[in-house]
Amino acid sequence: MNDISPDLDPAVVARFAAIVGDKYALRDQQDIAPYLTERRGLWHGRTALVLRPGTVEEVSRIMRLATETGTPIVPQSGNTGLVGAQVPDASGREIVLSLSRLNRIREIDTLSNTVTVETGVILQTLQEAADAADRLFPLSLAAQGSCQIGGNLSSNAGGTGVLAYGNARELCLGVEVVLPTGEVFDDLRKLKKDNTGYDLKNLFVGAEGTLGIITAAVLKLFPKPKGREVAFAGLSSPQAALSLFSLAMDRAGAALTAFELIGQRPYDFTLAHAQGVVRPLAGDWPWYVLMQISSGRSADDARALIEEVLEAGLEQGIVGDAVIAASMAQGDAFWNFREVLPEAQKPEGASIKHDISVPVASIPPFIEKAAGAVQSVSPGARVVCFGHMGDGNLHYNISRPVDGDDEAFLGLYHVMNKAVHDVVRSFHGSISAEHGIGQLKRDELIATAPPMTIELMRRVKAAFDPAGIMNPGKVF
Amino acid sequence: MNDISPDLDPAVVARFAAIVGDKYALRDQQDIAPYLTERRGLWHGRTALVLRPGTVEEVSRIMRLATETGTPIVPQSGNTGLVGAQVPDASGREIVLSLSRLNRIREIDTLSNTVTVETGVILQTLQEAADAADRLFPLSLAAQGSCQIGGNLSSNAGGTGVLAYGNARELCLGVEVVLPTGEVFDDLRKLKKDNTGYDLKNLFVGAEGTLGIITAAVLKLFPKPKGREVAFAGLSSPQAALSLFSLAMDRAGAALTAFELIGQRPYDFTLAHAQGVVRPLAGDWPWYVLMQISSGRSADDARALIEEVLEAGLEQGIVGDAVIAASMAQGDAFWNFREVLPEAQKPEGASIKHDISVPVASIPPFIEKAAGAVQSVSPGARVVCFGHMGDGNLHYNISRPVDGDDEAFLGLYHVMNKAVHDVVRSFHGSISAEHGIGQLKRDELIATAPPMTIELMRRVKAAFDPAGIMNPGKVF
Repeated sequence: MNDISPDLDPAVVARFAAIVGDKYALRDQQDIAPYLTERRGLWHGRTALVLRPGTVEEVSRIMRLATETGTPIVPQSGNTGLVGAQVPDASGREIVLSLSRLNRIREIDTLSNTVTVETGVILQTLQEAADAADRLFPLSLAAQGSCQIGGNLSSNAGGTGVLAYGNARELCLGVEVVLPTGEVFDDLRKLKKDNTGYDLKNLFVGAEGTLGIITAAVLKLFPKPKGREVAFAGLSSPQAALSLFSLAMDRAGAALTAFELIGQRPYDFTLAHAQGVVRPLAGDWPWYVLMQISSGRSADDARALIEEVLEAGLEQGIVGDAVIAASMAQGDAFWNFREVLPEAQKPEGASIKHDISVPVASIPPFIEKAAGAVQSVSPGARVVCFGHMGDGNLHYNISRPVDGDDEAFLGLYHVMNKAVHDVVRSFHGSISAEHGIGQLKRDELIATAPPMTIELMRRVKAAFDPAGIMNPGKVF
Repeated sequence: MNDISPDLDPAVVARFAAIVGDKYALRDQQDIAPYLTERRGLWHGRTALVLRPGTVEEVSRIMRLATETGTPIVPQSGNTGLVGAQVPDASGREIVLSLSRLNRIREIDTLSNTVTVETGVILQTLQEAADAADRLFPLSLAAQGSCQIGGNLSSNAGGTGVLAYGNARELCLGVEVVLPTGEVFDDLRKLKKDNTGYDLKNLFVGAEGTLGIITAAVLKLFPKPKGREVAFAGLSSPQAALSLFSLAMDRAGAALTAFELIGQRPYDFTLAHAQGVVRPLAGDWPWYVLMQISSGRSADDARALIEEVLEAGLEQGIVGDAVIAASMAQGDAFWNFREVLPEAQKPEGASIKHDISVPVASIPPFIEKAAGAVQSVSPGARVVCFGHMGDGNLHYNISRPVDGDDEAFLGLYHVMNKAVHDVVRSFHGSISAEHGIGQLKRDELIATAPPMTIELMRRVKAAFDPAGIMNPGKVF
């Protein structure tokens, strides 16, 4: 288990290792293994070396040496990404650069409402630190117990808080980036307004580590809501859900902090397969909405507002039935129900997943049109549709037909992707709303995006990483 | 008045003119004159030709010809910019491209909460169209009656709505851009989430027309507030204003839609010089705050919230005195008081202005330290300080000493700029918070920004505009 890959010169490996010291230069394949695949096992790579630098200076020296030796570098954060951006390729030529030791929260500024964090801070740790300072850091997603801020920024993470607070990009005020040459781009500022030239920060955010390595960031904090109410509603159609969303936006505005759509099938799968979940509504409905309203004023205020929205929805015939969580615990249970949906789909056999977005108004016609496309590819295939409706973002997953064969169904992977994504494109939507491109969607992006878009991205890549050593084969 | 500049080949001029037709190819210097300077008269340029295309296709053909002939193009919107970005240089080699005829509102989508507009739509026209559709377009600034959306985006405009709704960049979901080659980059999408590669949109936003020409955009709309309350408060210090801001954020959160700081001197100048303004508060205070709270629920709700904030401020000794506008008209009068501040400074003689930002928490120490720097440059010079405190953005203007000489004072322009901006930099602030770089701050940006920042911007410029024909001499 100690064989050095023949593709990396042992002398070069030794030079890289010397930068971080033996303890943090993993060369034993048993130690390296966790960095070579991701939790769903879709991508596997090879390397002879995983580097775990402890300072920005070490990251800088690593990149300087990478440039000198033409060694490709794959940055890795919490390794929870869903598109393979953080996994090295099979060549053995690439070095994995794990950033998890850069994990200090440098400063919380409760007057400017900012937090300055290093790239390896775990999202949940940051949430808790903000909470302890009586502030909210609103980025929230399933992997928050292990994903890290650098990965959140590099993938422009979304999640359930986007509706009211924005995605990772919108939460980021400044970045510190080590460039492929090892030089440091220091734009670690707490400014809400700064019009001094081109917006470089937003190029690094969402670039999946292909332009440079984000080593620290300044992020926004928000006042902690004083009240939070969660409700589950049953509805007859996506059109009704859209009407409820409009109603809730009209009444609650920025206080509407989540609006999640759940189809009957994922709802039923969850009741059937998930451990310890409680049925949120007594009756069965074709569609469900999980809605959250937060108030900066009081718990009573949040309660009054969510009641007003739901009563109006019931009166107008938009909402069929609804229940407001009677306690914090029941609210958490509602959220848990939402969070276990992906897991609850597994016992139903093979699935083909999509992470798409369309304009919010196009959600109902998309759902209708995509259903037809799915059936034309695989009659009997079961649409498992849920997601962040308020952002126009659906996790549009397809489970194989009830009596279907897993392998045969997965053989339809590309055909199904194309069928669903063609519908997405017909609504001017996105084939990757929040997970990114990585390895998973690279070929499709290049094949289907407007040629000018690809050309401009290539020019940006060439301008920032002329030697092509930053996470090659990802995005481009 | 009909002399064609010798610097543009008449044959080339004729080819450009043929694209838009004679009526929209201005060649008479009397017609051209308004495009050659801006309203404060700080910059003057020359040209033999102003083109006023009526379609994106014409813009595209113009840029194709510009690339073919190596002709520099200066895009111009409402010509209200404050840094000279929209004015041609004195060489006579540049053609002005006026975009005001591209002025259709293509679509308002009240379900997706988006509006698709062409670049030449006047900001106020867009505000009114949104209002008619029962929506809010929150970008709001002094020049809104004549500035155009393309200019707002190219300068990443700020104004008074940034605190709750974000600047022009944050309001923009998608853009359509004609590149220097005439090719069209079409990213005119209504998506709140889209992680398919690099963020190109945000490069064009804020680039001041140096990377391409924004011809259309998709912008966000918001629910129209049902209640709006405006208050004027008198306070003893910037520190007290910061405490009031924290209090208001804590109680009102996203409902706090404006928080403007006004020093005693601009307040007194306005009372002394502005026509028809009414004294907002009976007593005199060293500092004032104009605060606005908007409610998506009701007028009563906004009223209760602003009363709660001010009562708490008075109780805690933060606020010295406060008055809530008793009517919509009085609220408008309060806003008018704020808006005439720059004009009211003029009768006091020559002034040297700064548009700076620092972290919000640094506003009080900035004000203290900058005052010393100003006196060291010009003893007796009068600081006229006001601005968007909630965004950390101050218009930090200096009027000459009472008995000073205008010309002698203006002779200190660069020394004063440097003194104030050195203080800004000591707080990791920005020397252009919302007006941009243009011609005004180009040399200073290049001289004082981190060399790596300038180097990366140069690479972006070279990648998008290798021939250097897009608004040369601006930003870079």
